[in-house]
Amino acid sequence: MPSFDPARLDLANYAHQIFVETRFQDLDPLGHINNVALAGIFENGRVRFNHEMTHSTARPSAGERWLVARVEVNYLAEAHFPAPILIGNAIGQIGNRSWQILSVAFQNDRPVGLCDSTLVYQSSQGKSAISDILRAKLETLRLRTLR
Amino acid sequence: MPSFDPARLDLANYAHQIFVETRFQDLDPLGHINNVALAGIFENGRVRFNHEMTHSTARPSAGERWLVARVEVNYLAEAHFPAPILIGNAIGQIGNRSWQILSVAFQNDRPVGLCDSTLVYQSSQGKSAISDILRAKLETLRLRTLR
Amino acid sequence: MPSFDPARLDLANYAHQIFVETRFQDLDPLGHINNVALAGIFENGRVRFNHEMTHSTARPSAGERWLVARVEVNYLAEAHFPAPILIGNAIGQIGNRSWQILSVAFQNDRPVGLCDSTLVYQSSQGKSAISDILRAKLETLRLRTLR
Amino acid sequence: MPSFDPARLDLANYAHQIFVETRFQDLDPLGHINNVALAGIFENGRVRFNHEMTHSTARPSAGERWLVARVEVNYLAEAHFPAPILIGNAIGQIGNRSWQILSVAFQNDRPVGLCDSTLVYQSSQGKSAISDILRAKLETLRLRTLR
Repeated sequence: MPSFDPARLDLANYAHQIFVETRFQDLDPLGHINNVALAGIFENGRVRFNHEMTHSTARPSAGERWLVARVEVNYLAEAHFPAPILIGNAIGQIGNRSWQILSVAFQNDRPVGLCDSTLVYQSSQGKSAISDILRAKLETLRLRTLR
Repeated sequence: MPSFDPARLDLANYAHQIFVETRFQDLDPLGHINNVALAGIFENGRVRFNHEMTHSTARPSAGERWLVARVEVNYLAEAHFPAPILIGNAIGQIGNRSWQILSVAFQNDRPVGLCDSTLVYQSSQGKSAISDILRAKLETLRLRTLR
Repeated sequence: MPSFDPARLDLANYAHQIFVETRFQDLDPLGHINNVALAGIFENGRVRFNHEMTHSTARPSAGERWLVARVEVNYLAEAHFPAPILIGNAIGQIGNRSWQILSVAFQNDRPVGLCDSTLVYQSSQGKSAISDILRAKLETLRLRTLR
Repeated sequence: MPSFDPARLDLANYAHQIFVETRFQDLDPLGHINNVALAGIFENGRVRFNHEMTHSTARPSAGERWLVARVEVNYLAEAHFPAPILIGNAIGQIGNRSWQILSVAFQNDRPVGLCDSTLVYQSSQGKSAISDILRAKLETLRLRTLR
């Protein structure tokens, strides 16, 4: 088992927290939440984080897209149905035209997974630098230990 | 865009190759194969690789399980429906009780993703060392540049 | 558009009600909840109904299974992400060894779908008659207009 | 078990046939293809049928949509991973602005399900009558016993 930065397992370090329900369809023949299903649960938490974040002026304009370039999930314990999963989301590294979303998943107060995603900003002209408005917003949402 | 080992993009280095069909359900509102759906396509290719591998004596016994501990997917280009996706699978690092499956996905002769998965062997007594039979089998399936 | 029994669109007639979250993965290229995804949402509501119902002595014993024999979904309006969907569940016809679960889905107070499922009881000896305990429980949960 | 028109179980009566791969993700805790997953497999076969059908002039124009109004699936036997599923598709009833797609699913030469779907034509002005070109095309693809 690799060791993880303990800060990643402390919910208090995450700017955004949301419960995601588990579904019967998340289960696989081993009777636990399938690993791809957990990636889908992380995605759902991430999308809701993005929705809330972009209620501000950070919202993408027409022709702009945020594409997922990389997703790494570390599975820490088996997750089950039907208890909900609590997702914590925060911003990690911020580059010129990409940024990281760092997430943790808890079920019944026990960490079950970590997810690091990299999003890339794409304007109608292709990959572009992040706007100043978006960058400022992202800064406010960084994992607490990175601020 | 991070740079990748060019050996990972050469299908000839992968011990196992299999086409996986795309499904309408893999599409998301952006009209392309969703990133979680591509993780599911990689999983499907990996499971079929494991099935073929374990037609030999490497098969898990009753009470043994192979658990997914880590999955990293790098998205290289957008994938679409309905063309199939060609998955290449090979073994990467082999540890005491875990091993890596390295995968690549091509669609219409263009690389669309890379996937690195770590599997952990679990006997009925918990995590255990990989059996000699499984280790010998895994060695024969390593990515060509790692042999 | 076929016409439906108005009683099926009145939540007050359903013995069990539960909210099911929508997920980003439920969306398809038309930007709405995919029809198969809504079937999955109905399934999830149905499984939670069964779980609550079987907290009583109606629970299946070892070797028994409840198999889905038929599912009919009528799509009444487009459903969207991220609002939750409210599912109403009740029992319909009760046969010798099968029974119906009748469900309705509302989103933002508007009916979006109806689902009629038929479950078949299977003991370790194959299809069997429903136990008296299960039958009595099912009777208490019938759609109000059928009692 | 309800009885079905034997003509529905004869592949020779279906105008279109296509194999759909099963995926590991189709499996549920009972170890068989989940009922919603089979609905997704039917959808995938139906979409490919529509794609092939509309290579002719029956293709929807900009602003037009084909919406799914009703899906009924009857489950005849358990289906498993990893064998592929053979889907037969044909047109059933043709109305003023809707039509039926009738499908059957076989796995290892054994019927595992029947699916009846109703599609509704929607122009940019809302629900509209089916065009003469589409109607003529649909007629040529009816279930053999309905011609």
